[in-house]
Amino acid sequence: MDVYREALELHRELEGKLEMTLKAPIETKRDLSLLYSPGVAAPCMEISEEPAKIYDYTMKGHTVGVISNGTAVLGLGNIGASASIPVMEGKAALIRRFGGIDSFPVALDTEDPDEFVKAVTLMAPVFGAINLEDIAAPACFEIENRLKAALDIPVFHDDQHGTAIVVAAGLINAAKLTGRPLGELKVVMNGAGAAGVAIAKLLGTFGVEDIVMCDTAGAIYEGRAERMNPMKEEIAGMTNPERLDGALGDVIQGADVFIGVSAAGALTEEMVRSMAPDPIIFAMANPTPEIMPDEAIAAGARIIGTGRSDYPNQVNNILAFPGIFKGALSVRAKDVNEEMKRAAAEAIAALVGSDQLSEEFVIPDPFDPRVPEAVAQAVAEAAIRSGVARRVAVCVV
Amino acid sequence: MDVYREALELHRELEGKLEMTLKAPIETKRDLSLLYSPGVAAPCMEISEEPAKIYDYTMKGHTVGVISNGTAVLGLGNIGASASIPVMEGKAALIRRFGGIDSFPVALDTEDPDEFVKAVTLMAPVFGAINLEDIAAPACFEIENRLKAALDIPVFHDDQHGTAIVVAAGLINAAKLTGRPLGELKVVMNGAGAAGVAIAKLLGTFGVEDIVMCDTAGAIYEGRAERMNPMKEEIAGMTNPERLDGALGDVIQGADVFIGVSAAGALTEEMVRSMAPDPIIFAMANPTPEIMPDEAIAAGARIIGTGRSDYPNQVNNILAFPGIFKGALSVRAKDVNEEMKRAAAEAIAALVGSDQLSEEFVIPDPFDPRVPEAVAQAVAEAAIRSGVARRVAVCVV
Repeated sequence: MDVYREALELHRELEGKLEMTLKAPIETKRDLSLLYSPGVAAPCMEISEEPAKIYDYTMKGHTVGVISNGTAVLGLGNIGASASIPVMEGKAALIRRFGGIDSFPVALDTEDPDEFVKAVTLMAPVFGAINLEDIAAPACFEIENRLKAALDIPVFHDDQHGTAIVVAAGLINAAKLTGRPLGELKVVMNGAGAAGVAIAKLLGTFGVEDIVMCDTAGAIYEGRAERMNPMKEEIAGMTNPERLDGALGDVIQGADVFIGVSAAGALTEEMVRSMAPDPIIFAMANPTPEIMPDEAIAAGARIIGTGRSDYPNQVNNILAFPGIFKGALSVRAKDVNEEMKRAAAEAIAALVGSDQLSEEFVIPDPFDPRVPEAVAQAVAEAAIRSGVARRVAVCVV
Repeated sequence: MDVYREALELHRELEGKLEMTLKAPIETKRDLSLLYSPGVAAPCMEISEEPAKIYDYTMKGHTVGVISNGTAVLGLGNIGASASIPVMEGKAALIRRFGGIDSFPVALDTEDPDEFVKAVTLMAPVFGAINLEDIAAPACFEIENRLKAALDIPVFHDDQHGTAIVVAAGLINAAKLTGRPLGELKVVMNGAGAAGVAIAKLLGTFGVEDIVMCDTAGAIYEGRAERMNPMKEEIAGMTNPERLDGALGDVIQGADVFIGVSAAGALTEEMVRSMAPDPIIFAMANPTPEIMPDEAIAAGARIIGTGRSDYPNQVNNILAFPGIFKGALSVRAKDVNEEMKRAAAEAIAALVGSDQLSEEFVIPDPFDPRVPEAVAQAVAEAAIRSGVARRVAVCVV
């Protein structure tokens, strides 16, 4: 059966992908008096007197809020808060399944960043971390930045950083396989949306400095006149040091790496042929990549990753976000910072052993059971090192 | 061990009373493609095109938001949002345990009714009903009224209506046992807070018209000068038709019923002796009632109910709210109205059979397994009758 029709039937049968379970029985009057009135007053008073104890006595320490406003859902665009709920439930289910922690989906019925930030700030007490999801650019940047400043828990816009982390992991291994230092790679990226900006920033922390980002008007550079906005001004300021001008087909000549977060067909075989030897391609447009893997290989690509599960090297955020939240919560982190994201990328890359590393295996399988724990461990350690951990704890599977 | 100490240890051990469970396995790439990308786009599009389908494809239809701001938590007062979370988790756990539906606790960090109403309105899409909890008067009235007007799902402030429903159930049976029609009962209530107002309103729908409410300044009547506020003006307008003046000890003389939502010791044996024959007393101050049951009986009370589980006739909201939410959600109700609350009270009362009815048994046991289903059935039928049901369905256990 067609995946959409089968998915629809499954969703109708399930009526929601998550349900609650009690962690302790409520079968006797004694149970009631301990878990509810009057006994529950005791943890309430403890938290009232010492707010940090909220982690000891409530679900906060293992609960992630998955929050959207439905303005950029999958490839469907702005379908609104209510229609985004199946995706948010799905994300929460993945956090539960792969991260072993709890998650609740919230769809906020507003396109106003002020209202969004206010509502999330008000509801934050029960959450140990916030996963922002499917929020349109540029509002997603403002929302994430303001929430990170306002809240003392990790705030993570997965569409940006999850993708960036997995791409970075793939690139670490691709560079290793092709014998080139990361810092010497010449990277061209197509698509200047939320994910593109995050990829450029994260790669920058790995020493990748030669990045040129393109939008539909071509290379973005400082001083470009057409189709600029504050986000692209920021991009222009941190990429394209040589201020290259021209279309994707121009600037890709001689590049080592193509990263696509754009649309089907954006990368042609001819463009691949114009790249430096052993080109590395991450073509992540969904469901149809910028170039199909067989076409890329035919044109000389050495390594190609896509968003698809039916080809090798799937760039799947599932590799990152469950372990990131698991690790951040395990040390009751106050933030999720660049050091933690870098650590996640390195941990994902390291799961492909030197003996396994090949053109078709630079990124681990999304179902590799070692992934979430390895990422969590690395993220927790990075949180401790970088001073955002509230407690020093070793992750326990 | 002391209940508070044991409760604290149990809460620390559990770190939260709820966790999430997946309703379907995510073990294969096919599972992923059905429950998440790309298949999840299908239910998203269906909801986008026809918003009512949100009930078919998401958790909305079986999920209640338990929402507080921590301004009136148990008897602890305004301890704030974070410190209220153990209670909200407990409430959500009870809804899960007794109502068989899901619930998520939200603690909003604000005392501003505007901010509270706005945040709940924005986050409402994922919830099929809202349980407001532990919000101080008079803000609780404004918040409930505004949310009922803004949202197309049931909004229920349990501290008000849950208590009112169970008291009404007890009074129905007490009147039956003592052979008096409800409409002829002379009722005196002590305590003019949120629960008191709701009790007076609900009893009014049962034909109880002779109600005098007292606060610390004595009987509330139209034209009273001292200690009035908008809520008490409303009380004055709907109770005390004879405009009785005086202290509780004065107005209780000759009354058939005393209802206490006030403080320990407010009702003396002497006051009970001054009541009409066969007095009925619901003394619900927690943890120590307005009069202890043995003192009330010694002073001539025929029936006494309290909030305590260690005496007969416990007025426990657990009898009402799980079944109310279960019933309202079963028909996808748009509102919870007076007819549904009345039906809940009658259903609770009816669970004490004529052959069982006695002075010590006018209210069913909170653990009576028949209660939630009987209440849900009655509430669903009332929702259909009163035109607030989105679908006509019979509750299924």
